[in-house]
Amino acid sequence: MDEASTINADQDRLVGVVSDLKDLLGNRLQLGVAVRDAHGHDESWHETHAPDAVAFAASTEEVAQIVKICAAAQVPVIAFGTGTSLEGQVSAVHGGVTVDLSQMNEVLEVHAVDLDCRVQPGVTRKQLNAYLRDTGLFFPIDPGADASLGGMAATRASGTNAVRYGTMRDSVLSVTAVLATGEIVTTGGRARKSAAGYDLTRLLVGSEGTLGIITELMLRLQGIPEAIAGGICPFESLDGAIDAVIETIQSGLPVARIEVLDEVQVAACNAYSNLDLPTSPMLFLEFHGTDTSVKEQSERFAAIACEHQGGSFTWTTEAEERTRLWEARHNAYYASLALEPGKKGMTTDVCVPISNLARCLRETKADLDASFLTAPIVGHVGDGNFHTIMLIDPENRRDMAEARRLHDRMVRRALALEGTCTGEHGIGLGKMAFLEEEIGQGVNMMRTIKRALDPQNILNPGKIVSL
Amino acid sequence: MDEASTINADQDRLVGVVSDLKDLLGNRLQLGVAVRDAHGHDESWHETHAPDAVAFAASTEEVAQIVKICAAAQVPVIAFGTGTSLEGQVSAVHGGVTVDLSQMNEVLEVHAVDLDCRVQPGVTRKQLNAYLRDTGLFFPIDPGADASLGGMAATRASGTNAVRYGTMRDSVLSVTAVLATGEIVTTGGRARKSAAGYDLTRLLVGSEGTLGIITELMLRLQGIPEAIAGGICPFESLDGAIDAVIETIQSGLPVARIEVLDEVQVAACNAYSNLDLPTSPMLFLEFHGTDTSVKEQSERFAAIACEHQGGSFTWTTEAEERTRLWEARHNAYYASLALEPGKKGMTTDVCVPISNLARCLRETKADLDASFLTAPIVGHVGDGNFHTIMLIDPENRRDMAEARRLHDRMVRRALALEGTCTGEHGIGLGKMAFLEEEIGQGVNMMRTIKRALDPQNILNPGKIVSL
Repeated sequence: MDEASTINADQDRLVGVVSDLKDLLGNRLQLGVAVRDAHGHDESWHETHAPDAVAFAASTEEVAQIVKICAAAQVPVIAFGTGTSLEGQVSAVHGGVTVDLSQMNEVLEVHAVDLDCRVQPGVTRKQLNAYLRDTGLFFPIDPGADASLGGMAATRASGTNAVRYGTMRDSVLSVTAVLATGEIVTTGGRARKSAAGYDLTRLLVGSEGTLGIITELMLRLQGIPEAIAGGICPFESLDGAIDAVIETIQSGLPVARIEVLDEVQVAACNAYSNLDLPTSPMLFLEFHGTDTSVKEQSERFAAIACEHQGGSFTWTTEAEERTRLWEARHNAYYASLALEPGKKGMTTDVCVPISNLARCLRETKADLDASFLTAPIVGHVGDGNFHTIMLIDPENRRDMAEARRLHDRMVRRALALEGTCTGEHGIGLGKMAFLEEEIGQGVNMMRTIKRALDPQNILNPGKIVSL
Repeated sequence: MDEASTINADQDRLVGVVSDLKDLLGNRLQLGVAVRDAHGHDESWHETHAPDAVAFAASTEEVAQIVKICAAAQVPVIAFGTGTSLEGQVSAVHGGVTVDLSQMNEVLEVHAVDLDCRVQPGVTRKQLNAYLRDTGLFFPIDPGADASLGGMAATRASGTNAVRYGTMRDSVLSVTAVLATGEIVTTGGRARKSAAGYDLTRLLVGSEGTLGIITELMLRLQGIPEAIAGGICPFESLDGAIDAVIETIQSGLPVARIEVLDEVQVAACNAYSNLDLPTSPMLFLEFHGTDTSVKEQSERFAAIACEHQGGSFTWTTEAEERTRLWEARHNAYYASLALEPGKKGMTTDVCVPISNLARCLRETKADLDASFLTAPIVGHVGDGNFHTIMLIDPENRRDMAEARRLHDRMVRRALALEGTCTGEHGIGLGKMAFLEEEIGQGVNMMRTIKRALDPQNILNPGKIVSL
């Protein structure tokens, strides 16, 4: 293990790098404390590790040059989109240069017939959907935050629509990326499927900037459905809600979104988003299809809910009301944080086979009810994935010890139930300790790949696997 | 490059390996010429390269021991399922030991609620679907041949249902594999989605036995739809058929299968499967859904076909008639071979964005019409993927030169149209020359991964990338 992987970049080498980058980028290289600090943390509780410099890149070629300059001096390079990750992915734990890709934010091509588009990595999901407004198409992956598409690919993000449309794994046709050597690789074309060698696209998707920096993406789009129906359904118990989810999925209802909120999360959303939902466990749903089929789906779900002590399922195809509810759902994380201002969120992200979901949620809820921490539950339960947002003061050792204890129990429970420690947030810093437990020998295989593609360990070092 | 990667395994080392394997496997190690020859080729034109021995493995642990024995002596190890690949994937071009996995053919678990199952790699797709018959579930990937699921994963197979259900990339939740070191890796659990580190599952899917030998698979299943409607529609021209396909996909019709056959292929199927279809370009279709929705889909398609000079679309929800047609479609490859008995098939497999499909097919058809070779066209056109099956005598230099000329033109055309040289058959031996043209620098990245995970180049050497 060389020093660059364990301590901040050596100052002399750094001075040379900064000088070279200044020549390349001019004012787009920033060294001010405020800019560096802003790039040293994401939206989670993980502490700030500011990079030594922030480079605002304008093109793939420029990213390649930045990486080459840093590689020659063994200085770390960290990719940054919007900083909305939740596991410390952007934190410069070993210093180095953060490459901010937010200025590379052009939608380059849209092929409506082929349902695909080519974008730069700084384009955010909302920006893309606004751009697509008149095409009849949309990009379905929505992790809540208005994240950049490069960052979403890098963390293999998903969100509320994944139960119907899959995750970033399924939505990225190919990428262009800069490797640790500064080489530029494009992993494929626009074909909907390919069997041409190793799946480099999927290797880079979810690699969190540790194997390459994504500088362009070819994305799959979806047609906006003829009709959308959505609504909410309160339940007497969390168990009842989950049983209704399981029956919905099993019956083959092609639900587009099916989300659970426990009563703590509902109360948080009421307060934050000015709603007056009954404070009981609740499902948020959405159905996509034709007028006939969304009506059929909504009625079928209402019948299922009824069998599981659900309240009445009120649904509408009217856009305004749906939007208001889904905005509240998307703001669940911020609503949770607002419950105890000043605290930070430690987010859990387990995902289990749906048949094990009721048990996993029930035992988790019992743990949380017995704890002194406030921790709403919200989840993409159609996929078996849910989050608790544990409100903590990272300086408070009692908070941290309790949050870690609960987190450990949750992950071990999920692994025992054949699940994963992270359905969609990624490993970053926060889940590294669990990855080995989850995947055993597989971590060695990951290390081998990392060492081969980045022998100097300069790409986002200290994330996913320790070397 | 060490010798093991370029010439047949050294005889002395081989003698030691055979002796060790004999101790391990007894009669399940076979050295007879007939068995070795049968394992030295697939269903394509590629010439037979027999392995030095064939090991019939019974368990993951046994595969690990076989690999360890071979690794210690730097002897190649080639995985073999049913031998139904089409690019020479199983050919022992550098000799060594073929591990036949066909006796590892147990369905280990089915989780109906979770729509998943765990199988050994020798289970074939038909065997799995027969096993699932009473569960209301099915496994959707069907490459035509009754291939083993391990082999299908290794080649990232797809087939007629991919337009609706995706490919093996989408249908494999996780795998257990033996790496070049003999280490056993399990790449994940049963969660429907995961962001836990590098996507080792997708790296192994499509790696054609060059990075690991898949010894167990967790697969995603689908619910058998309430209703299935299927039928055929003749067209005056191939162009008209493809325009109808494009409009069908673009209109968001969730077609489950949409296949084109040109008039040469229809004639071949008529002869082979005893049908009397009109010998014109033709679409085979299938719709999945409720009774109402398959009727709606069929009627919508009929209207689309009508706009593109399609004949009448005759469809049925009756199982027997549908099965007869789809069996004929699945036997298209064998029907083509039967056109000129004694000849072999050189199969092309380009896949392009659907907006470029009409042009790609039209220019290909013109090439084939002008050639002396017989070459039916059949394709999964909903994905932009089609095959020509060029009938050749591999010993005949004129045949080979012409087939290679046509093949080159087809691939270059597909690449110029932003497509791939292989939608589903893989690279094997047959497409290696094209991979570099298609993916450029990406091939170096593949080489780096291969060298890191298999530094001795013992796993299926000489396939996908040359080292």
